[in-house]
Amino acid sequence: MYRTNTCGELNISHLNSTITLSGWVQKVRNKGSMIWIDIRDRYGITQLVFEEGKTDANVFETAKNLGREFVIQISGTVIERFSKNDKISTGDIEVFVTKLNVLNISETPPFTIEDESDGGDELRMKYRYLDLRRNPVKNNLLLRHKIAQEARKYLDNINFIEVETPYLIKSTPEGARDFVVPSRMHKGEFYALPQSPQTFKQLLMISGFDRYFQIVKCFRDEDLRADRQPEFTQIDCEMAFVEQKDILETFEGMAKHLFSKVLNYNLPNFLVMSYSEAMEKYGNDKPDLRFSMEITDLTSIVKGNNFVVFDSAEYIGGICVKNSSEFTRKQLDELTKFVQKPQIAAKGLVYVKYGLDGTLKSSVDKFFDEPKLNQWATKFDAKSGDLLLILAGEKEKTLHALSALRLEMAKQLNLMNKDVFVPLWVVDFPLLEWNEEANRFQAMHHPFTSPKIEDFHLLDTEPKKVRANAYDMVINGVEIGGGSIRIHDKEMQATMFKHLGFTKEEAENQFGFLMNAFKFGAPPHGGIALGFDRLTAMFAKTDSIRDVIAFPKNNAGKDVMIDSPSQIALDQLVELGLQINKKE
Amino acid sequence: MYRTNTCGELNISHLNSTITLSGWVQKVRNKGSMIWIDIRDRYGITQLVFEEGKTDANVFETAKNLGREFVIQISGTVIERFSKNDKISTGDIEVFVTKLNVLNISETPPFTIEDESDGGDELRMKYRYLDLRRNPVKNNLLLRHKIAQEARKYLDNINFIEVETPYLIKSTPEGARDFVVPSRMHKGEFYALPQSPQTFKQLLMISGFDRYFQIVKCFRDEDLRADRQPEFTQIDCEMAFVEQKDILETFEGMAKHLFSKVLNYNLPNFLVMSYSEAMEKYGNDKPDLRFSMEITDLTSIVKGNNFVVFDSAEYIGGICVKNSSEFTRKQLDELTKFVQKPQIAAKGLVYVKYGLDGTLKSSVDKFFDEPKLNQWATKFDAKSGDLLLILAGEKEKTLHALSALRLEMAKQLNLMNKDVFVPLWVVDFPLLEWNEEANRFQAMHHPFTSPKIEDFHLLDTEPKKVRANAYDMVINGVEIGGGSIRIHDKEMQATMFKHLGFTKEEAENQFGFLMNAFKFGAPPHGGIALGFDRLTAMFAKTDSIRDVIAFPKNNAGKDVMIDSPSQIALDQLVELGLQINKKE
Repeated sequence: MYRTNTCGELNISHLNSTITLSGWVQKVRNKGSMIWIDIRDRYGITQLVFEEGKTDANVFETAKNLGREFVIQISGTVIERFSKNDKISTGDIEVFVTKLNVLNISETPPFTIEDESDGGDELRMKYRYLDLRRNPVKNNLLLRHKIAQEARKYLDNINFIEVETPYLIKSTPEGARDFVVPSRMHKGEFYALPQSPQTFKQLLMISGFDRYFQIVKCFRDEDLRADRQPEFTQIDCEMAFVEQKDILETFEGMAKHLFSKVLNYNLPNFLVMSYSEAMEKYGNDKPDLRFSMEITDLTSIVKGNNFVVFDSAEYIGGICVKNSSEFTRKQLDELTKFVQKPQIAAKGLVYVKYGLDGTLKSSVDKFFDEPKLNQWATKFDAKSGDLLLILAGEKEKTLHALSALRLEMAKQLNLMNKDVFVPLWVVDFPLLEWNEEANRFQAMHHPFTSPKIEDFHLLDTEPKKVRANAYDMVINGVEIGGGSIRIHDKEMQATMFKHLGFTKEEAENQFGFLMNAFKFGAPPHGGIALGFDRLTAMFAKTDSIRDVIAFPKNNAGKDVMIDSPSQIALDQLVELGLQINKKE
Repeated sequence: MYRTNTCGELNISHLNSTITLSGWVQKVRNKGSMIWIDIRDRYGITQLVFEEGKTDANVFETAKNLGREFVIQISGTVIERFSKNDKISTGDIEVFVTKLNVLNISETPPFTIEDESDGGDELRMKYRYLDLRRNPVKNNLLLRHKIAQEARKYLDNINFIEVETPYLIKSTPEGARDFVVPSRMHKGEFYALPQSPQTFKQLLMISGFDRYFQIVKCFRDEDLRADRQPEFTQIDCEMAFVEQKDILETFEGMAKHLFSKVLNYNLPNFLVMSYSEAMEKYGNDKPDLRFSMEITDLTSIVKGNNFVVFDSAEYIGGICVKNSSEFTRKQLDELTKFVQKPQIAAKGLVYVKYGLDGTLKSSVDKFFDEPKLNQWATKFDAKSGDLLLILAGEKEKTLHALSALRLEMAKQLNLMNKDVFVPLWVVDFPLLEWNEEANRFQAMHHPFTSPKIEDFHLLDTEPKKVRANAYDMVINGVEIGGGSIRIHDKEMQATMFKHLGFTKEEAENQFGFLMNAFKFGAPPHGGIALGFDRLTAMFAKTDSIRDVIAFPKNNAGKDVMIDSPSQIALDQLVELGLQINKKE
């Protein structure tokens, strides 16, 4: 038996017990005649003590030669510490060691196994198994475990059934790029890895499973941005015989359950906001509501003052930044540079300072006198001491820029408190969006999303105006999940495919099984998928999903620890009927 | 709101309530002025009643035209049934329908949605979403869900942490064939899908996670036998600072928990049997212990009687079949044919009938007189009325044949009761087995399994005699899972790779990351993987794992419902830098 207790377990109630522990050497303090060693395992740290003369001479000698990360097993007696450590649960005791067994030695690790490591990102990824020993990373994975268990408990409790859907499925060009898997038994043919179990969960509803969930890996072969992974995890759910409000209630309940059980946090009721309201007020379909700073539309009150920038603009709007009228010229110049960045692309920034002395000073004083500015201030509901920041241009782009500016100001003013969570549902998304590249409409959510019945008649004439029964769960400006009420009618699905530019043959070839299934009594149904990595990152209060994934890939899609992807043997290729041809 | 209740919920306590149900039309009984319709959902069946004159005329008219599998929503009043049905939970009541809404129509399904369907295997797989509506299949998946939840609860409770390991890993030629995934970003390179998370769970132990589990999909590109799937599910577990007995205790506990919670079955304590004992007594490393019928070794007592078959045989052994001395000549001839089948390949069958009158008659009376046969009977501990079946030949093959014969006799005598479960651990497996094709030894379990220390010195001289710290969980003759205590020492792992025919470069290239990890304080560890499909099939009392998988593939690895694998677009191939070349 390797241990009687874990390294996080012993306390004053164990005084004088004889115990055995196993773990890693965290720290050695050798004071000559006295040696203290911290032994560590997943559960905690316990202090060991060795004293020359009192401790067995062989044991003392072995202790002297222990290094960091050696794996040891010790037996000894629990004694009271002279100077206690109230920061750890075992801080009242130490163990006087009588037996010491070195289970494995360790080379000096390439970086320190501490909360703040001296290892760079690259190095820590190569030795991820050592990085995982560090508390911050370890705790993230423990948190992830807890969220998964609680999510399942919540869903199991209300009759959701966990069903495993297949990983070797069929490639469908709609949406992101698939990872494909060549078939050896059927040379020249391929499976695809699922981007999500979408069609399978719909089939399960048609099968009558009523309520389905799965915590499941999904795959997208996309060019990776900082916070994307080629494989990621979803909490994937679907319900039959439901309307949108049933789904919102169920998953608002789940979010509250998770925050309560895992973080002991009382999540407030979700606000419900339409997509168009979110865009008007925040320039963004995932507004961060930890702070207000709503966008105010000035278009109707600022035109006709010979300021050509405003007069020629489709839209003029701004935000009111509280208590920031003392921003310096330099700060304002930097904000101007910020909004002029290519990814934001505003032309310039107009500001109005509502001074603490009650005066209004702006960067457009030439065109607008104080009564005019006062009118603006009223529109913004601004108070003395506030700063108004105003942008103008094409409406959609200006709202986008105002959203970026709003978030930047919140960051500068420390309004994004990671310990506060403000959730909402964004609903009534547009059904379609224009794809510039493909020169056609594509589904904003996916081709199985149902349009709002009352908008359906606009599909031919004003397709952009058709709203979908689609919704996103947004917390603190992060899209945690999204879903929709699905189409369950064969004719409507065929119409949708037509509008998305599928020929009848393409629709049949890719989704024939689903269209076919609709013939045999498909119930009304809908669902949602939550990004489990993203949700866990939010719980862990980190910005990167890589911090909550045990073995993530880097931005080039590489696992640098195992060195993958890599070349395979020629006979593997031959068996698959494939040849490598890097030239196009 | 689509429903106030489910179709399995209403009973006498709901009398006179006004309720709304949604579901599928299971059955229509139209008696002219009265129509009864069974409405079905996942939770059960409720009887609806429509009466001409009393029921709203439009509703009655609609009801008349409903067909099987139509999706309907009804409202009505719960009334007491005239003739009750005590086979279903809603059998005391029916619903007098006041509103009827057809949510979706259905074509006549291609097979009946009944417990015993008229659909063949092929047809049911093509329309799997309809097959899943049938109770036997549906109940299997509900059972699977329950086992998964209970397995996680058990493991979570004793500090196991669920960690998701990656699906896009690295191809390693050792073991079965990998499915590979071409990388677009790194043309000419490939990921592989995991055959198991073996190396990752070992790394998690090195990381200090102490106890890991995951219910996880694994992939093997093998030529499929009847009961194999290219993707299958494991309950995958690993523990640090453990000896073999710790693991056996933990997972014996899990098996008992699952049988108790899911089947309300009290699983007995596990017998522990060595591999060599299992082979001697049952000719099989996964003996079915629901019945005894052990193999008796006769080699030492039957030689030297001029019966050349025995005299020239390395081994002579047999089984004693209770109460079967009345087997006819025809039955015995058929048994002879059975053991002569190519996959069993015995030369012939010797029998001795211990008659109810106390006489002993054998097929080898010419060579053995009654005192001799009596000696055999004593050795078998046979009683009057028993039948002895004896085979001779090369030892290993004869034991294999006796095992097959033993199982065949148990089948014929109905000794394999599916409602009884007899578990055991088979331990002390050989470390290595000879691979005829490759002309070298290979790991019987896998290359990370540790040899027994006391046998280690035989590795060079008598490698076949080296036993491993490896174990299988066997229930009713089915291998439910297997595992081992792993090597955690870099030198020993290098020695093992050498014995398995890896060059230093191959070992480094494929498993360098693991060998490297062993340098930094690897703890003693071990684990197990249980076949979740197989376990669920046993719980569901079915012989095929396909019955407990929502969307299985057929024997050719095809999903005939979605028609996968299939061809992909040429531009997908080009992007991947691949070309199809079916010729070798």
